[in-house]
Amino acid sequence: MKTACLISTGTELLLGTTNDSNSTYIAERLFNRGIRVVGKVVVGDNHNTIKKAFENALDLADIVVSSGGLGPTRDDLTKEVACEVMGCDMLINMVEVQRLKDYFARRQRSMPESNLKQALFPPEAEIIYNSLGTAPGMYLKKDNKVLVLLPGPPREMEPMFKQEIEPRLERDFPQAVNRVIRRTIKILGPGESQLEKMLDSVMDAYPELAMALLAVDGEIHIKLTVEGQDINHSQELMEKVSQSIKESVGRHIVGYDDDSLVSVVARCLVETEKKLAVAESCTGGLLAKMITDLPGSSEYFWGSVTSYSNEAKMLYLDVKRETLEKHGAVSPEVAREMAQGMQKKSGAELALSITGIAGPNSDAKEKPVGLVYICLAAGDLLQVKEMHFVGNRESIRILAAKTALDLLRRHLINGGR
Amino acid sequence: MKTACLISTGTELLLGTTNDSNSTYIAERLFNRGIRVVGKVVVGDNHNTIKKAFENALDLADIVVSSGGLGPTRDDLTKEVACEVMGCDMLINMVEVQRLKDYFARRQRSMPESNLKQALFPPEAEIIYNSLGTAPGMYLKKDNKVLVLLPGPPREMEPMFKQEIEPRLERDFPQAVNRVIRRTIKILGPGESQLEKMLDSVMDAYPELAMALLAVDGEIHIKLTVEGQDINHSQELMEKVSQSIKESVGRHIVGYDDDSLVSVVARCLVETEKKLAVAESCTGGLLAKMITDLPGSSEYFWGSVTSYSNEAKMLYLDVKRETLEKHGAVSPEVAREMAQGMQKKSGAELALSITGIAGPNSDAKEKPVGLVYICLAAGDLLQVKEMHFVGNRESIRILAAKTALDLLRRHLINGGR
Repeated sequence: MKTACLISTGTELLLGTTNDSNSTYIAERLFNRGIRVVGKVVVGDNHNTIKKAFENALDLADIVVSSGGLGPTRDDLTKEVACEVMGCDMLINMVEVQRLKDYFARRQRSMPESNLKQALFPPEAEIIYNSLGTAPGMYLKKDNKVLVLLPGPPREMEPMFKQEIEPRLERDFPQAVNRVIRRTIKILGPGESQLEKMLDSVMDAYPELAMALLAVDGEIHIKLTVEGQDINHSQELMEKVSQSIKESVGRHIVGYDDDSLVSVVARCLVETEKKLAVAESCTGGLLAKMITDLPGSSEYFWGSVTSYSNEAKMLYLDVKRETLEKHGAVSPEVAREMAQGMQKKSGAELALSITGIAGPNSDAKEKPVGLVYICLAAGDLLQVKEMHFVGNRESIRILAAKTALDLLRRHLINGGR
Repeated sequence: MKTACLISTGTELLLGTTNDSNSTYIAERLFNRGIRVVGKVVVGDNHNTIKKAFENALDLADIVVSSGGLGPTRDDLTKEVACEVMGCDMLINMVEVQRLKDYFARRQRSMPESNLKQALFPPEAEIIYNSLGTAPGMYLKKDNKVLVLLPGPPREMEPMFKQEIEPRLERDFPQAVNRVIRRTIKILGPGESQLEKMLDSVMDAYPELAMALLAVDGEIHIKLTVEGQDINHSQELMEKVSQSIKESVGRHIVGYDDDSLVSVVARCLVETEKKLAVAESCTGGLLAKMITDLPGSSEYFWGSVTSYSNEAKMLYLDVKRETLEKHGAVSPEVAREMAQGMQKKSGAELALSITGIAGPNSDAKEKPVGLVYICLAAGDLLQVKEMHFVGNRESIRILAAKTALDLLRRHLINGGR
């Protein structure tokens, strides 16, 4: 298996205000091609430190990918130092000089002298075109090592890596490509240890497959990875395992890979041509916000009321004063009246309501932080859930909104019964 | 100036699914103490790679801080390798053995044999207590170098660093402490280059002060840093510069450091005892969600309507059908009726409304994506703003919600006139 080492250059990455997201992006792309990242280094704009980083990286791995330090200023040393370590001379490349001049001309500016160094390259390197900035990258294969230099800004680096570097890696390391298959299965409902138990027998049956559980905003993502030379075998294995997981935890599966709870619900609503309206209290608009994060949501989303005060609940949702007085705003009775009121006012077939205590404090002793009532009104059907969430204000609100969506999802995938 | 190098251990940090947030946290804390981070390294759970990382780090810097790899499994090699590199033997520490046993006893479990290695330490090291997990850290000063080992989970690492490591750094490097003063001034309104121009003269007048502009979700944060031996002088300088900036861009300043637009508006609402209600369209609940992110918002927030459909606008906000037909939902007229309707229905003195096109597509040719109307109804006053935002759906929605809050903020800080 080929190995890679990643280098990120930039003093700003050492000040603790900026995460090094470039190396995370590159690591994932390389992993998916079956190239194992064995180390990542971040260094400032300092000649000696950069030199040491390249020496170590080339010593450690077959492929070294660096980002940052390709700009026109004196601080930008990466290319110069990397070529020194690789034992390559740099020459001025006239095609690149012209490209730089064109870049500035299009912006009605003349090129500063200092930018000329961005056109310096070893003759044996492939120059990687940067359509979004002045700094070209480079790809160099020499002495059984590959050196890749890319600019630092993610919006320039990412397309260059994807469109220009990956095809070259495929050309130079064909055996490394497509050896890893990944799938994510997203679960809402059971807890992590409960899910682990449900999956135990599946995992025992398929030891060649790696599984990791990742808690993500109230969901648990099952991350499946198969590695192996025989791609057909790997694919078959992935299908088998997915099928087994589906049999064990089927109804808790929200979706796969790029699916999200919201996108799955949206798909169901579009298919069934049903309209949804929402009445929120403790989630304060979060559920509506999540629904409308998706473009095109106006097709099925009527609107929502954030009834943060009792007056809003009475005025907009026809919640009765006596229900509020008798049971309190956080009660199954009020959740029910909120959903029914919303359904009636909007004329939408489906209405969701949420009322609860997001914290950090609760006014009522018998109603602890995390107590949330969720109601789905679907035609004549009325379904209330009492939940006890654990976490801070933010996570309780996210869990409440997601659980409401999931209640709707389970209703819709059962054909609305 | 003392230097530091950071090492993060963990194969999961090399797979491209997890950002190395520990090193960002530690870098910021060290920077604030006047210790310069010269490099960061991420390595997998591999003996040789870890060894090389420690050798290089100790070669490069005065202080080496590592996180991860202190668990009980065979993969957890950090302490063993680091001590090997430092030339220290490890002995079993009976106090730590007892602590581990207590930890498991409290959880009604017996301690697995493998956890014993977590009680191995060089006798010359200071053991750092971990109240949230089984892995203690260590602090070792030897041969003019300081070696710090901490566990990987951020919720264990962060309090240990803050409460246990920082006092020791202060003890061992008193000259490095408190030499850096930082302040963030948060701006909403002018663009980055416009702001730069407004600040040019300030910056020219104070060359000892470092300034960086950072774009954060529609705001621009002015990051000010003063470094110097004389803390009083630095503080004075920071005050002077803040005052100058206030004079140049005063009304665009949202707040300082931990302030947020929402918290500043909330403070004004509490002080003036005014109530706020909100009518949203394209932001789809985001503005209400932002307002209710703050605990205690029920004190001043009446509630909101997300009138995603025209029917919702008519039913809940008294927007007239003819206004919708004549001007379209995205128009200053509808924004005005939404705010007025919300104000009247809720009885709140203040109402904000937002209607616009968040994209990615627009139905109407003459109404491009990014066109947003925002209206503030404050008592009898009615103020409409037409905005042309650039960005994707998410950023347009954030900009719209923030601009609405900022309209309210400017109204409130002017004493509501």
